Amino acid sequence: MSEAVYVLDLFGVAVFAVSGSLAAGRKRIDIFGVLVLALVTALGGGTLRDLLLRDGDVFWIANTVYLLVVLIAALFTFFVVRVLTIPRRWLLLFDAVGLAVFTMIGADKALAVTDSGVLAVVMGMMTGVVGGMLRDVLLSEVPLVLHKEIYATATLAGAIAYVVMVTLGAPYAASVVVSIAVTLGIRLAAMRWGLSLPLFALRKAKP
Amino acid sequence: MSEAVYVLDLFGVAVFAVSGSLAAGRKRIDIFGVLVLALVTALGGGTLRDLLLRDGDVFWIANTVYLLVVLIAALFTFFVVRVLTIPRRWLLLFDAVGLAVFTMIGADKALAVTDSGVLAVVMGMMTGVVGGMLRDVLLSEVPLVLHKEIYATATLAGAIAYVVMVTLGAPYAASVVVSIAVTLGIRLAAMRWGLSLPLFALRKAKP
Amino acid sequence: MSEAVYVLDLFGVAVFAVSGSLAAGRKRIDIFGVLVLALVTALGGGTLRDLLLRDGDVFWIANTVYLLVVLIAALFTFFVVRVLTIPRRWLLLFDAVGLAVFTMIGADKALAVTDSGVLAVVMGMMTGVVGGMLRDVLLSEVPLVLHKEIYATATLAGAIAYVVMVTLGAPYAASVVVSIAVTLGIRLAAMRWGLSLPLFALRKAKP
Repeated sequence: MSEAVYVLDLFGVAVFAVSGSLAAGRKRIDIFGVLVLALVTALGGGTLRDLLLRDGDVFWIANTVYLLVVLIAALFTFFVVRVLTIPRRWLLLFDAVGLAVFTMIGADKALAVTDSGVLAVVMGMMTGVVGGMLRDVLLSEVPLVLHKEIYATATLAGAIAYVVMVTLGAPYAASVVVSIAVTLGIRLAAMRWGLSLPLFALRKAKP
Repeated sequence: MSEAVYVLDLFGVAVFAVSGSLAAGRKRIDIFGVLVLALVTALGGGTLRDLLLRDGDVFWIANTVYLLVVLIAALFTFFVVRVLTIPRRWLLLFDAVGLAVFTMIGADKALAVTDSGVLAVVMGMMTGVVGGMLRDVLLSEVPLVLHKEIYATATLAGAIAYVVMVTLGAPYAASVVVSIAVTLGIRLAAMRWGLSLPLFALRKAKP
Repeated sequence: MSEAVYVLDLFGVAVFAVSGSLAAGRKRIDIFGVLVLALVTALGGGTLRDLLLRDGDVFWIANTVYLLVVLIAALFTFFVVRVLTIPRRWLLLFDAVGLAVFTMIGADKALAVTDSGVLAVVMGMMTGVVGGMLRDVLLSEVPLVLHKEIYATATLAGAIAYVVMVTLGAPYAASVVVSIAVTLGIRLAAMRWGLSLPLFALRKAKP
C-alpha cells in the first residue's frame, strides 16, 4: 500500500468513525457506547476482510494508529455535535467517502493475496459495507445497504472498476482514483437525485 | 469431500441463497440487497466454521464456484418471484434441506480436522444455523432458530447421528444419508404437525 | 494462565451462560434456543479475541470443557427458573462478574501475544462486551453496552488497571485481583446508585 493510499485508508477510517458516532445520536447512547459504534463501523469491514484473507495480522493489530484515529474522530464528533448541528446530509456524505475508499482498498488487498478478480470484487464490497451493516444492526435497524438507493450498486461498480483497471495494466494511481471516483460518483448521484433500484416484495396471494 | 457431497454442498448453498433472497421480500430490499442477504445466508455458517477450524482457506475463497451459485440462485429467485407466487411453505422446505445438508457437512469437516465428536456436533449445528441467524438479524428479526418449532433440535440430532455413525465405523455414504434424513425428517415432521418444545418465559412476580 | 485464572475463566463462562439463558426469558425461546443464546453470550467475546490474535486454537476448540460448562449452566438455568423466580438484579450481577473476569483475561491474553498495552485494553474490552452484544442483537435489542450506566466505562477502567499493574511490574495475582475489583466495583456502583454518563443525542433543528 503506497503512502497516499495509507493516508486515504486513515481518512476512510476517520469518516466511518464519524459516521458511526453520528449514528449513535439516533438512539440514547453514552460516550463509550459512541466509541464502540465508531470502532465497529470504522474497523468492522477491514477486520472481516483480513480474517478471511488470512494474510498476516488484522490491519489495526499490525498498526494501532488506526485505533488512535477512531478514538480521536469519535471524541471529536461527540463534543462537536454538542455545540454544532450537523446536517444529516453530512453523515451520508462521510459515509459515501468511506465506502469509496474502503471498496478500493479491499479490492486492492484481496487482489494482492488471492490474484482472483471475483474475490477482489467481493472483498472490496465487504470492506465497504460490513462496518455500516454492523453499525445499523447494533442500533436494531435494517442496514442501509439492503434497501437504500444504489448503495451496494456503487460499491460493486467501484470494485469492478478497480479490478478492470488493474487487469488492463493501468498505473496504480489511476486505478485508485478511477475506483474511488466510480463508487463516490454513483453513490452521490443516487443521493442527489434520489435514484433507487426496484424494490423486491413478495407477491401476495389475491384475497 | 466426495463428489456426491460436493454436489450436495452446492445444492445446500443454492437453497440457502434462495431462502435468503425470499426473506428479503419481507422488507423493502433492492436487488443488490437481495444479493447481500443471499450471500450471508448461504455462506455465513460455513465461513464461521472455516475461520474457527483454521484448516486452510475458507471454502468460498478456495473455490469461487460457490459465489457463482449464490449469484445465480439470487438472480433466479429475484426474477422468478416477480412472475410466480412462491408459497411460504417452499421457503421453509428449502430452509430445511439446506439445514440438513450443512449440518452433515459441518460435522464432517470438523471431525476431519479436530477428531472430536463434541466439536463435530457444535460445528455441524453452527454450519446449519448461523447463515439463517445472520439473515434474520439483518432483517431486524429474532432468528427462527431461537423460537421456531424444533429447529435447533433437528440440527442437533442430525449432527449427533453423523458422529455416531462415523464412530461406529459405518460407510461414509450411509453416514451422510442417515444424518441428512434425521435432520430433515425431524424438521419436516415439526413443520407438518406444528410440534414445538416448551417455550421459556421468566416467571413474573404475582401482582 | 494460572490454575486460579482458569477457574475464574470457567466461572466467567458459566455466569455469562446463565445471563444468556435468562435473557432468553424476555422472548419466547425454546430450550435449544436458550442453549444457542448461552453459547453465544458465554463464548462470543473470547472467540472473536482468539480469531483476531491468531495465537493457536480458539479457546473452546482447544479445550471443550468450556462447552460442557455452558451446557450445564444453560440447562441448570432453564430448569431452575421454571421453579424459582430469579430477580432481575441477579442477572445484572452475574453479567457484571462475567464482564470483570473476561476483561482481565482478554487483556492478559492480548498482552502475552502482542506486547501492546493499547491492544490489551481493546481486547480486554472486546472479550468482556462482545458476548453480551451478540446476545442482545439476537434478541433484536440495542445492546446494553451502548446505553447502560457505565458499562463500557467499567470494562475500560478494568482493562487499563490490568495493563498498568503489569507494566509497573506488579505480581500477577495482584494485577488479576485489582483489575477484576476495578471493573466490578465501577459496574456495581453504577448499578447501585443508577449512575450514567451523559447520553448523546443529535441536536434537532429548531422548528
